Amino acid sequence: MTTSTALLLADLTGVAVFAASGASAAVAKRLDLFGVVFVGFVAALGGGIFRDLVIDEVPPLAFADWRYAATAAVTAAAVFWLHPQLAKLRTTVLVLDAAGLALFTVTGTLKALDAHVPAVGACVIGMLTAIGGGLGRDLLTAEIPVVLRREIYAVAALIGAVLVVVLHWLGRADTLGLTGAAVLVFLIRLVSLRRRWSAPIATLRPPRTGTPG
Amino acid sequence: MTTSTALLLADLTGVAVFAASGASAAVAKRLDLFGVVFVGFVAALGGGIFRDLVIDEVPPLAFADWRYAATAAVTAAAVFWLHPQLAKLRTTVLVLDAAGLALFTVTGTLKALDAHVPAVGACVIGMLTAIGGGLGRDLLTAEIPVVLRREIYAVAALIGAVLVVVLHWLGRADTLGLTGAAVLVFLIRLVSLRRRWSAPIATLRPPRTGTPG
Amino acid sequence: MTTSTALLLADLTGVAVFAASGASAAVAKRLDLFGVVFVGFVAALGGGIFRDLVIDEVPPLAFADWRYAATAAVTAAAVFWLHPQLAKLRTTVLVLDAAGLALFTVTGTLKALDAHVPAVGACVIGMLTAIGGGLGRDLLTAEIPVVLRREIYAVAALIGAVLVVVLHWLGRADTLGLTGAAVLVFLIRLVSLRRRWSAPIATLRPPRTGTPG
Repeated sequence: MTTSTALLLADLTGVAVFAASGASAAVAKRLDLFGVVFVGFVAALGGGIFRDLVIDEVPPLAFADWRYAATAAVTAAAVFWLHPQLAKLRTTVLVLDAAGLALFTVTGTLKALDAHVPAVGACVIGMLTAIGGGLGRDLLTAEIPVVLRREIYAVAALIGAVLVVVLHWLGRADTLGLTGAAVLVFLIRLVSLRRRWSAPIATLRPPRTGTPG
Repeated sequence: MTTSTALLLADLTGVAVFAASGASAAVAKRLDLFGVVFVGFVAALGGGIFRDLVIDEVPPLAFADWRYAATAAVTAAAVFWLHPQLAKLRTTVLVLDAAGLALFTVTGTLKALDAHVPAVGACVIGMLTAIGGGLGRDLLTAEIPVVLRREIYAVAALIGAVLVVVLHWLGRADTLGLTGAAVLVFLIRLVSLRRRWSAPIATLRPPRTGTPG
Repeated sequence: MTTSTALLLADLTGVAVFAASGASAAVAKRLDLFGVVFVGFVAALGGGIFRDLVIDEVPPLAFADWRYAATAAVTAAAVFWLHPQLAKLRTTVLVLDAAGLALFTVTGTLKALDAHVPAVGACVIGMLTAIGGGLGRDLLTAEIPVVLRREIYAVAALIGAVLVVVLHWLGRADTLGLTGAAVLVFLIRLVSLRRRWSAPIATLRPPRTGTPG
């Protein structure tokens, strides 16, 4: 009871945070009110819809429980009206976004394990739950997804997902363990933001003189 | 019998209209014959495929009933060959597109309700059924989806979806009521085109003088 | 036993080849190591995930069998480190890609038929299995999908899918027949590359003098 209420609150917090990130991107692209709400909806719920389709939990939670859609829509609309103020809150938004990433990683991986997805698949699904909304947001606003280009973001989610799978395998996927996994993702993300860590980029050799066929 | 035939005809009309809109966009982007047919297919059937995945009606109707794929492919190929003539029919296409929007909204919302999706989710699914194909078309042709930027389009679908849910709740989702909902979506769309109504866009403040960190 | 091992090997070969194509595109777009692996994963497994969702085989094989994700990830990471060498192997990559197209067409169509999808739908699903990963790769790297623009690619897959359906209907979908279908797709693709065959593009009339409303 308390646990499920806590999980719901954690989930809805993640939804609100990601809706805000999607709505901000849409405002910057000059989308209209509907577009802002829609991109917010996709950013907040896209990852979870994909997760639920893949583990055959239909209709996905985003459609089955009105509180998810309502949280996303209200948050995105609020960003539409308030965005000049939000710009000043950039650091706050980044911190909340890291929290959303952490929460979605843990709940996504857990749900996949509960649906009897094997370990490797559950890790990938957990990570995709966490980054899927951001991917959708960037596709809709015609950007190469940020998650593929910069910083430690998806990698933090992947590490958290692996940890959840290990905890589950050890029979330690209790509140304490899962909270620990979420905190780990959160910290990895924040520290990498702070220190500007990023994954390596391949070196492109300069073109040779003289052209091959 | 007659009802189901009427529904099928309505559905296939919507498929043809959206296939034509997708094919036109693909011709403008200089895609080849296959690309034109493919974008037409996605524009016509993408929304319905998403709807069927979400309500667990698999395989989706687009794959289970050959008349859907055939209608989309033949229409798109026809646009490929006839597009200079179609350009002159721009108004006709816009009117037919509004009709497709209306039809897909009503059938999408109804199918979601029949699959026991709760009210809010059914509204969102109905709207996504109607606008999903257009989203896919714009993603494939590397555009920010038009539906997110301009005019009253998705909003008309959303209003229609809410009306279908209310009619269903009142036990009045009969031919008369559903036709009324479709006509309403159709008229909202046409009037907003005519009057150039559009959803509000957020005001972006000019950048301040002096740069913060 | 031998057949299913052969099928698995064929499938994993296709996965590796498509992962390499996705990773190469990602390297060219300057994505980081994670981005390269992720685009490789989508290119290799995206078509199959779509196929499995549509025929209700959940969780999709890409998540249910770790060898698929592992093959895709290892191959993509290898491309990240080795890509300057791979550039010299361009012809080899194109040949392997044609082989992947052939393999995925045959296995995708067969799986759809086994899931009782009717003939036309099975052809479309088979083709989408083969080209879906490439579509995802191009969407993630913000390109208009190559498959929609150039050359005989999807058409080769479609021809192969139709042949598999016909063989299945004749009761001749045995190893010999299926191998023949795969070889046919492979050859059509290679010959069209060699001869620079392509599907027709619509002629755009020059704009008229004088502007209509």
